[in-house]
Amino acid sequence: MSRTEAGQRPRAVRARFRAGEGGPTAGLAPGHTQANLIAVPADWAYDMLLFCQRNPKPCPVLDVTDAGAWSTQLAPGADLRTDLPGYRVWENGQLVAEPGEVTGHWRADLVTFLLGCSFTFEAALLAADVPVRHIELGRNVPMYVTDRPCRPAGRLHGRLVVSMRPVPPERLSTAIRETALFPSFHGSPVHCGDPAALGIADLDRPDFGDPVDVRPDEIPVFWACGVTPQAAVMASAPPFAITHAPGQMLITDAREEHYRVL
Amino acid sequence: MSRTEAGQRPRAVRARFRAGEGGPTAGLAPGHTQANLIAVPADWAYDMLLFCQRNPKPCPVLDVTDAGAWSTQLAPGADLRTDLPGYRVWENGQLVAEPGEVTGHWRADLVTFLLGCSFTFEAALLAADVPVRHIELGRNVPMYVTDRPCRPAGRLHGRLVVSMRPVPPERLSTAIRETALFPSFHGSPVHCGDPAALGIADLDRPDFGDPVDVRPDEIPVFWACGVTPQAAVMASAPPFAITHAPGQMLITDAREEHYRVL
Repeated sequence: MSRTEAGQRPRAVRARFRAGEGGPTAGLAPGHTQANLIAVPADWAYDMLLFCQRNPKPCPVLDVTDAGAWSTQLAPGADLRTDLPGYRVWENGQLVAEPGEVTGHWRADLVTFLLGCSFTFEAALLAADVPVRHIELGRNVPMYVTDRPCRPAGRLHGRLVVSMRPVPPERLSTAIRETALFPSFHGSPVHCGDPAALGIADLDRPDFGDPVDVRPDEIPVFWACGVTPQAAVMASAPPFAITHAPGQMLITDAREEHYRVL
Repeated sequence: MSRTEAGQRPRAVRARFRAGEGGPTAGLAPGHTQANLIAVPADWAYDMLLFCQRNPKPCPVLDVTDAGAWSTQLAPGADLRTDLPGYRVWENGQLVAEPGEVTGHWRADLVTFLLGCSFTFEAALLAADVPVRHIELGRNVPMYVTDRPCRPAGRLHGRLVVSMRPVPPERLSTAIRETALFPSFHGSPVHCGDPAALGIADLDRPDFGDPVDVRPDEIPVFWACGVTPQAAVMASAPPFAITHAPGQMLITDAREEHYRVL
């Protein structure tokens, strides 16, 4: 994949995904906002928007489309049906397809939610000398379903999903500060340290993404994750939904700096 | 009004309002979160929630009730129909009543939105030696309807409303920093300086609240205001709505520190 500056512009990266390229998006188009995608029938849109409002750490809403639309002001010219590297299609809470584009699955009643993603603050972490292991390794970030229930909303319920990055102790306060200033990308960590406190039995067996090594001196740090609504879809079984594949985000034109609170 | 410590506990302050006391709430129960209230029929709830999501600076959602409920987890034991000092009742965008309680106006289909309020960060401003003129004067904060359109959502549209506090130049960066860390209470200012840039003709004639003097060396600083949804009700004319009276907020039990991002 081209790592030239022009090749890292959001539009160019989306064009490659539209042409069929796949893979996780961590580290791509640095400085630009990445987004989780979840589309549900309009009949479920209020429950989803309320679920997001009631669970703002995992579900920071960046944009909501009108029913049927596949465009967003966050990425002019983008087609939400084709411009992500990978999608998941859900029927009654069951995964029924994992296609590279969803033009054939789209419905006129779909309302699409774009939620902030922790990949976006990784550029700020790297700039502040906080290492990001899964980028070093060229892997997807490890993600885990915790034992913490989300606050339900209407018919939607489910458990919190988190992403994990190992951080050296001397960089921990920097990592917390840098991410706290981006509440739209999940903000500060939900937990630092023992994964058992979140009901995570084995860091080497993530529920989504790839495992990464945690060195003996490092602290596993957990941030709320935008895969949480997918866990809610699995638990709550709406008749139909389309989501991004975990770690395979929409890359928008919006500058991450736009969302920094200070 | 009692200013003893016990008399400033949120429950005690709400009890006074429930008993019929009125007046703006700036400076009351310092350290606790104050909230704007807007209740609309369930048929309008999605439009309102989407309006808030699309306009997060004026409309930071703290809680949304289920239809008909008059309780909130932000203030256990509170009755949303009686525990604010003043209300406004709207029919088709027209103000039809300004009662001290709305038990007789309540409807089983009302969904109530509680939105963050800039009164909450005034304790942090005072602690950081930023003066708050309307508290010094014992007045309501001045509020203005600007010429900036909000991003519409469904049937809801309207213009941004702001509150204004005069800040000495040497305290401006502190005022910006302290409020930026509270995005749930409108966050950083939307404008500093010439009110004409917001289409405000005369600071001495606020659209809501009371005027305050701006001294020659002071900069008028404008924050997005939770009266914005009231302006949307006036502009968009839903069949029915109940709101707080401007400056007369719900005082919740939630600590302001809970919402500080760092």
